[in-house]
Amino acid sequence: MAEHNSAGPVPQLPEAVAVVNIGLALFGDAVRAQGAEAVDVDWRIPAGGDPELIAALTALHGRHAAAVEAANAEVTRRLDTAAPTLLGVARAGEAVPGMGERTLLHPGPPQPWEAFCDPLRRSARAAAMAEGWASTPEAAEAVIGGGEVELRPANHHATALPMATVLGPTSPVLVVENALCGNQAFSGINQGPGATPWFGVESPAAVRRLEFLRDAVAPVLGAALAASSPIDVFSFAAQGLQMGDDAHMRTQAATNLVLRHLLPALVRSEHPRREEVARFLAGNHLLFLNLAMAAAKAASDWAAEVPGSSIVATMARNGTTFGVRLTGLDRWFTAPAPPVEDALFHPGYGEVDAAPDIGDSAVLETLGLGGAAAAASPAIATFLGGKMAGAVAATRAMERITASRSTRFTIPYLDFAGSPVGIDIRRVVAQEVTPQITTGILDARQGRGQVGAGVARAPLACFQEALRGLAGVLA
Amino acid sequence: MAEHNSAGPVPQLPEAVAVVNIGLALFGDAVRAQGAEAVDVDWRIPAGGDPELIAALTALHGRHAAAVEAANAEVTRRLDTAAPTLLGVARAGEAVPGMGERTLLHPGPPQPWEAFCDPLRRSARAAAMAEGWASTPEAAEAVIGGGEVELRPANHHATALPMATVLGPTSPVLVVENALCGNQAFSGINQGPGATPWFGVESPAAVRRLEFLRDAVAPVLGAALAASSPIDVFSFAAQGLQMGDDAHMRTQAATNLVLRHLLPALVRSEHPRREEVARFLAGNHLLFLNLAMAAAKAASDWAAEVPGSSIVATMARNGTTFGVRLTGLDRWFTAPAPPVEDALFHPGYGEVDAAPDIGDSAVLETLGLGGAAAAASPAIATFLGGKMAGAVAATRAMERITASRSTRFTIPYLDFAGSPVGIDIRRVVAQEVTPQITTGILDARQGRGQVGAGVARAPLACFQEALRGLAGVLA
Repeated sequence: MAEHNSAGPVPQLPEAVAVVNIGLALFGDAVRAQGAEAVDVDWRIPAGGDPELIAALTALHGRHAAAVEAANAEVTRRLDTAAPTLLGVARAGEAVPGMGERTLLHPGPPQPWEAFCDPLRRSARAAAMAEGWASTPEAAEAVIGGGEVELRPANHHATALPMATVLGPTSPVLVVENALCGNQAFSGINQGPGATPWFGVESPAAVRRLEFLRDAVAPVLGAALAASSPIDVFSFAAQGLQMGDDAHMRTQAATNLVLRHLLPALVRSEHPRREEVARFLAGNHLLFLNLAMAAAKAASDWAAEVPGSSIVATMARNGTTFGVRLTGLDRWFTAPAPPVEDALFHPGYGEVDAAPDIGDSAVLETLGLGGAAAAASPAIATFLGGKMAGAVAATRAMERITASRSTRFTIPYLDFAGSPVGIDIRRVVAQEVTPQITTGILDARQGRGQVGAGVARAPLACFQEALRGLAGVLA
Repeated sequence: MAEHNSAGPVPQLPEAVAVVNIGLALFGDAVRAQGAEAVDVDWRIPAGGDPELIAALTALHGRHAAAVEAANAEVTRRLDTAAPTLLGVARAGEAVPGMGERTLLHPGPPQPWEAFCDPLRRSARAAAMAEGWASTPEAAEAVIGGGEVELRPANHHATALPMATVLGPTSPVLVVENALCGNQAFSGINQGPGATPWFGVESPAAVRRLEFLRDAVAPVLGAALAASSPIDVFSFAAQGLQMGDDAHMRTQAATNLVLRHLLPALVRSEHPRREEVARFLAGNHLLFLNLAMAAAKAASDWAAEVPGSSIVATMARNGTTFGVRLTGLDRWFTAPAPPVEDALFHPGYGEVDAAPDIGDSAVLETLGLGGAAAAASPAIATFLGGKMAGAVAATRAMERITASRSTRFTIPYLDFAGSPVGIDIRRVVAQEVTPQITTGILDARQGRGQVGAGVARAPLACFQEALRGLAGVLA
C-alpha cells in the first residue's frame, strides 16, 4: 500500500492569490475593481440571524442530529416507495373514515365558516345544494352558517382536495390503497374545466356538474376501473414526467395514459350516459391530478406516522391560511395564504382579481412532483420565463431544501436525475428558501372561476413556526 | 448619420498570434506542442475530393444557385406548411389511385419479386393469403412468383408504408387530404405489436391480424373518425413532440391524444367487436406512426411538384435497396439498404439476426420528424447513449444537412427551436453526412418478427447519385 501520509513536496507560498468572497457581492466587486480575481459565494446568515431559530437549528443539527436524520431517512423512504393503487370509486359518506352525513370536507387547515374565503364559501354552498340541503346559495349560506353542517379539513380524513373543492357525503371519491402500510386515501373526481365549484363557482351549472359527477361519471368510471387491471398511480405519474407533465398543474400525459388504460372497459359500458361521460373525461386534462393527490395523501399519511423528523408531511391551503404539518406532530403551523406569482392571467383578468393560493394539491410537492418536477415540463416552463431554464431553476430551488431524490420520478432534462423529495424544514429556515407550488388562480370575489395560473411560494413563517415546534418537542 | 466608412484608427500589427488549424487535428497538435495557441476547425475536402461531385456542387452553388435556392425555398415552404387532415378509413382498392384488384403495394423503391428480402416476401405472402388468393405461404409464393400479382411501390400511389407492410386491395387505408394542394395520401392502419406481417411474419395469427384490421378495426375506427371533428395530423405530431415523441419510433403521446379525441365516438359504437378493437387500439403505441406517414406523404407529394430543387422529397427502403427521390425528378437514386446501428436487441437476438433497414417511414425525416426530432424524445435517447446529449447530437447532425427549420415542430430541449426541415443533397454530399433514421429491426431470415430497434444511417452513394442526376438535368 502507498503511504498517503508520508512526506510530500515541501509546501510553498503561492505565487498568486485570488479572493473567495462569501456573502455580499459588494466586497467581491471591490476586489475586482483593483484588478484581482474574486469568486462570489452566495451565503447569508442562517435563518436571517434570528437567535431562537438559530438555537433550534443548532439543536436539530447538533445533539438531535442522529435521531432526526434517522427519522428523516425513514420518512423519505416512505415518500419514495409508497405505491398506492387506485381501487375504484365510492360514496364519500361511506368510504371516508369519520365523515358524517352532515359533513362537508374542505381543503387546507381547519377554520371556522367566518374565515372561509369567497371562492371556498361558494364551493361549500354549491356542495350543500348538490346534497339537497338547500336550493339557493342564500339558503345554503343559512344552513352552513347556522351550524347545521360540520366543516372538516379533508386532511384529517385521509383526503386531499384540489383548489376550492368541497365534498359532501354523496360525492364520489377516488379510493387508493397503499399496500405497504394498508392505509387508504381519497380525493374527489376532478370537476373539470369551466363553471365548476372547485374554481369557486356556485351557479346552477356548477351545481349540475356535481350532480353529473355523482350520477353519471361515478358509475361509468367506477365500472371501468372495476373491469380494468389496477392502476399503480405513481407509475403513471412517472411515465407522465417522461412526457412533459409536472403531475400537478400539467397532468395531460398521465390523464391520457389512464384513458387509454380504461378504453376497452369504457367501450364496453352500456350506461345510458356513457357518451356524455366519455366527452367529459376526454375534455379534462386534470383528471389525473386528483388520482395523484389521493396517492400522495396515502404516502404522506404513512410517512406522518414517523416521529421526530424535520420533513414536511403536509402542505395545504384553504385560501385564507397556508398550513404545514410535520410527521409525528398532530398540529398545523400556519401563516397567511400567499399570492400566486409568475401569473399568466386569462384574457380580461389581472392581479386585482386573484384570490390567494388555495388547495391541498401541494401534497404533491412533498414527494417530488409539481414544482419539484418543473424541469420535466415544457408546459410549466411557459410560466417560468418561457424557456426550460426557468423550469430547471424551480427544480434546483427545491433541491436546496430537500433531503433526498426520488428513485422513480426522473427528469429527462436533468439527465434522468431523480426529482427532489422530502422538504426539510431545517434547510427551508436556514436558507430562507420555501417550496414553490405550481397552481391555478381563482377569482377572489365574484365567483367567475379560474382567472389564471402561476407559482405560489410557500410563506416562510409557517416553516419557522414548525421548526420552533419541533425543537420544543425534542428539547 | 455616422459615417461608417470614415477613417478609423490606424491598423496595427497584433502583438500576439494564434493558429486556426483547418482540417487534420495533427497540425494543430504540432503548433500546441510548441507552446502556441491553436484552434482546430473540423474541415474536410468537400465530397471526399471526387472531381465529378465537386463539379456538380460548384454548378449547383454557382451558376444554378439562384434557381436552386428559389426552388428549395418553395419546397421547404410546402414541407413546413402542408396541414393534412385525416378524412377517414377506406378500402385500398377503391381509394388509392391506380391500384388494381390484383395489386400488392410495398414499401421502398420498385424491384422484381426475386429481389424482395425475406421479411418483405413473408409480408407479401401474408397479404395474398388475407386477400384469399392463396391459403398457404407456398401457394401464395406460387401466385406472386407466377406473375399473377402486380407488385407496385406504394410511393408511386400516394401511399407510404412502414417497415415491411404490404397492402392488398381489400386492406383498409387511412386517407388524409392536404387542403393547400387538394392532394390525398394514404397509409395502412398500423398492424400493432407481436406476430404481424409488417414485422415480416406470415403465420396464421399474422394473417388473422390483417383480417381483423379489415373486418373489425376499419369499421369501428372509420365510424369513430366520421363522428369526430377532423384530426389535423401535424398539429397532433407537434403536441407529441412536447410530450416526448419523435413522431417516428416513439409516437405514444400522439397516439394517446388521438385515442382521447376519439373516445366519445368509440364509446358510442355498437359494433359487436368494439371492445376487441378498443383493446387493440389501446395496446398499439404506434397507431399514430401511420397517420404521420400518410400526412408526410401528402406534404412530400405536394413538394415533389417543384422542379429543380436540391431537397430530398422521398427516402424509402424496401429492405434490399435504399432509395432517394428529388422533387421534380421522376426517378429513384438507390444504394444497398444499410444495416441498423446503435441497436438495442430484444432478448435472445443480435446482429446476426438483423435484416437491413426497411420501410417508407423515412419520409418523416424529410420534414422535421423522427431522427430530426430526436432531441424531443427521452425514449429515443435510450438508443443514443442513454442521455439526452445523444439525442441532441442526432438533431444537430440533421441541422448540418437541412435547409430550414420547422415553424411548427419545436423541441423543448433546444429552447423550443424548430426541428430541421428539408434535406439538401448538396450539404449531404459536400459534408458526407447522411440522415439518421430511428427505426425497428426485423428478423432477417426466420420470420420471427421484430428483433430490436436502432438508428439507420442513409447510404451516401444514393445522395451522390442524386447530385449527379440533378446537375445533369440542370446542365
